[in-house]
Amino acid sequence: MSSVIPVTLPHTAYEIVITSGCLPQLGEYLNHLKLGQKILVISNPEIYDYYGDIVVNSLIKSGFEVYTHLIPPGEPYKTLDSIAQIYDIAFKNRLERASTMLALGGGVIGDMTGFAAATWLRGINFIQVPTSLLAMVDASIGGKTGVNHPQGKNLIGAFYQPRLVFIDPLVLKTLPVREFRAGMAEVIKYGVIWDQDLFNQLETQKELDTLENLEKEFLQTIITRSCQAKVDVVSQDEKESGLRAILNYGHTLGHAIESLTGYNTINHGEAVGMGMIAAGKIAFKLGMWTEKESQRQDKLIEKIGLPITISSSLNIADVLESLQMDKKVKAGKVRFILPTEIGKVIISDRVSAELIEGVMQELI
Amino acid sequence: MSSVIPVTLPHTAYEIVITSGCLPQLGEYLNHLKLGQKILVISNPEIYDYYGDIVVNSLIKSGFEVYTHLIPPGEPYKTLDSIAQIYDIAFKNRLERASTMLALGGGVIGDMTGFAAATWLRGINFIQVPTSLLAMVDASIGGKTGVNHPQGKNLIGAFYQPRLVFIDPLVLKTLPVREFRAGMAEVIKYGVIWDQDLFNQLETQKELDTLENLEKEFLQTIITRSCQAKVDVVSQDEKESGLRAILNYGHTLGHAIESLTGYNTINHGEAVGMGMIAAGKIAFKLGMWTEKESQRQDKLIEKIGLPITISSSLNIADVLESLQMDKKVKAGKVRFILPTEIGKVIISDRVSAELIEGVMQELI
Repeated sequence: MSSVIPVTLPHTAYEIVITSGCLPQLGEYLNHLKLGQKILVISNPEIYDYYGDIVVNSLIKSGFEVYTHLIPPGEPYKTLDSIAQIYDIAFKNRLERASTMLALGGGVIGDMTGFAAATWLRGINFIQVPTSLLAMVDASIGGKTGVNHPQGKNLIGAFYQPRLVFIDPLVLKTLPVREFRAGMAEVIKYGVIWDQDLFNQLETQKELDTLENLEKEFLQTIITRSCQAKVDVVSQDEKESGLRAILNYGHTLGHAIESLTGYNTINHGEAVGMGMIAAGKIAFKLGMWTEKESQRQDKLIEKIGLPITISSSLNIADVLESLQMDKKVKAGKVRFILPTEIGKVIISDRVSAELIEGVMQELI
Repeated sequence: MSSVIPVTLPHTAYEIVITSGCLPQLGEYLNHLKLGQKILVISNPEIYDYYGDIVVNSLIKSGFEVYTHLIPPGEPYKTLDSIAQIYDIAFKNRLERASTMLALGGGVIGDMTGFAAATWLRGINFIQVPTSLLAMVDASIGGKTGVNHPQGKNLIGAFYQPRLVFIDPLVLKTLPVREFRAGMAEVIKYGVIWDQDLFNQLETQKELDTLENLEKEFLQTIITRSCQAKVDVVSQDEKESGLRAILNYGHTLGHAIESLTGYNTINHGEAVGMGMIAAGKIAFKLGMWTEKESQRQDKLIEKIGLPITISSSLNIADVLESLQMDKKVKAGKVRFILPTEIGKVIISDRVSAELIEGVMQELI
């Protein structure tokens, strides 16, 4: 089973390849892209232990000159300092304009590699080989790259498109269950904001809480549909001036929760799950969404095995303050993405602080 | 006297405004661009002493909320650390996507401000107010932004276009004569690579070595023609995949010379002047250019008051090694831009190390 999603943007085009077991063929795929000879593979030690040899051997077999650079895992390393280290490696190995940086890892590795590729020599080739479900269906698509500022997530970055996104769903077998669930939160998101049929397919599955409970074909389907949903949106709004904002469904509050918990006690997908539940409740309270559909969403989030309550240690005043810091704030107004039916959302800046506070109280 | 040069690129358009005495009207011009309220003015202390009040007052009068950040002058501060400081200021003052960073200064300030604007929140508005001749006719146009890597100039950066380039030639009155001459090197460059008539106009002037020797109208003319030449080239090749390379006439060797002298004993324009003389000699020795035209170029460079010999302390082997590090190296081959007649150049990667060495020996 294999899917290829073409991505066509105003001044670039690339493909997302989704094929079970394709990892050893990576080099052959890259041969079609007319890249320079040098490839710098950027990964973290754990992922590299699993898949580094397969990737590097495939690249060497296809005639590439391969360098590797490993960065310890996790958000704390998603910094400008890590980027400066990549620059040093790029300099040392004399990467040229035609050279390539390849991200082998989850969203953190992808975001950093993309930002380094965007800014080394003002832009060299960039390849995404996402190894987490979250990176496959979200982070690797759409060209958002960047690092964290000490005071806020993803405040530093660039829009920069990869030359190829290469997804082998089989690599998910080594993904910790908690991260699998975090990825599933984004899959549900696409169901709510864009693809009613995807939502229905998820709903009719008996179990969704571990990879083992998913048939190979179903996994391929939900990854493909999620990627397609993201591509649909991003193709219409590459630089996030309008429609693209709907991808932030669940993220407005999600980012605030992540940021206040220091990005480690609650992971991105868990925070987004909570954010979606809160946004659903806000939409219901504003009379925009039915209680029934809101509950269908919450049930699906629960079926994934994601937490559906917010830790009582979170200070709600801090959350409200943190919302003001969001990149997407416009003239001081926080924008919320709110569902009106499954598969459809609207963008609203009329959500009051009181309403947010009330809904958060309910979730504790 | 006023000139407006429209710049039209595939996915953006902006204007270069060149008007003697326009600086106090900056705010009014910006009002047409629908920017957000916040503007962060980035400058160096010396420039800001001269023009900071005029700029800030003009912006405030037009309703903007103005923040300022000063960076010490010179290439040694053109680093990722200086960018990180700008990020901190941007965070502290809560700059939003619609906010603006404005560069008031020479090329270093412009390059850094542009890179910070390109990468804060993945891109906010950017305005260029160049105060040196070099920045007016070269650095501020074309969207190249960036900082130096400890091992090489401009290795880190992004292509990012300003919303407006706002040039008041009157501010050149405070420019040190050595920097004026450095800017004139680029003006001559445009004459050699693109605009024969500009070259002829320069040639017929009696004196060119100080600003005082230039009529106001002539100054406006050469700035406008230089900007137009750069716009012509850049519009056809925004991302430096082909034609744009000709703008590097004199820069291949120039960068190597600058880099080896640590960016301070010889300035950019002086290095480019030497690079043009060397490139002219190479073109002559390859039978591509007449000796007469090559000498006309060298005479003009001399008339500006630029050095026409290379310091004997430069190690030629180091220069050859440094050429290999240039961003524009493709598959290990150094590309040279070589004149075939005044107003026309070609791109060549067939210049041997021996030929470069021979020509450099002549210039010592």
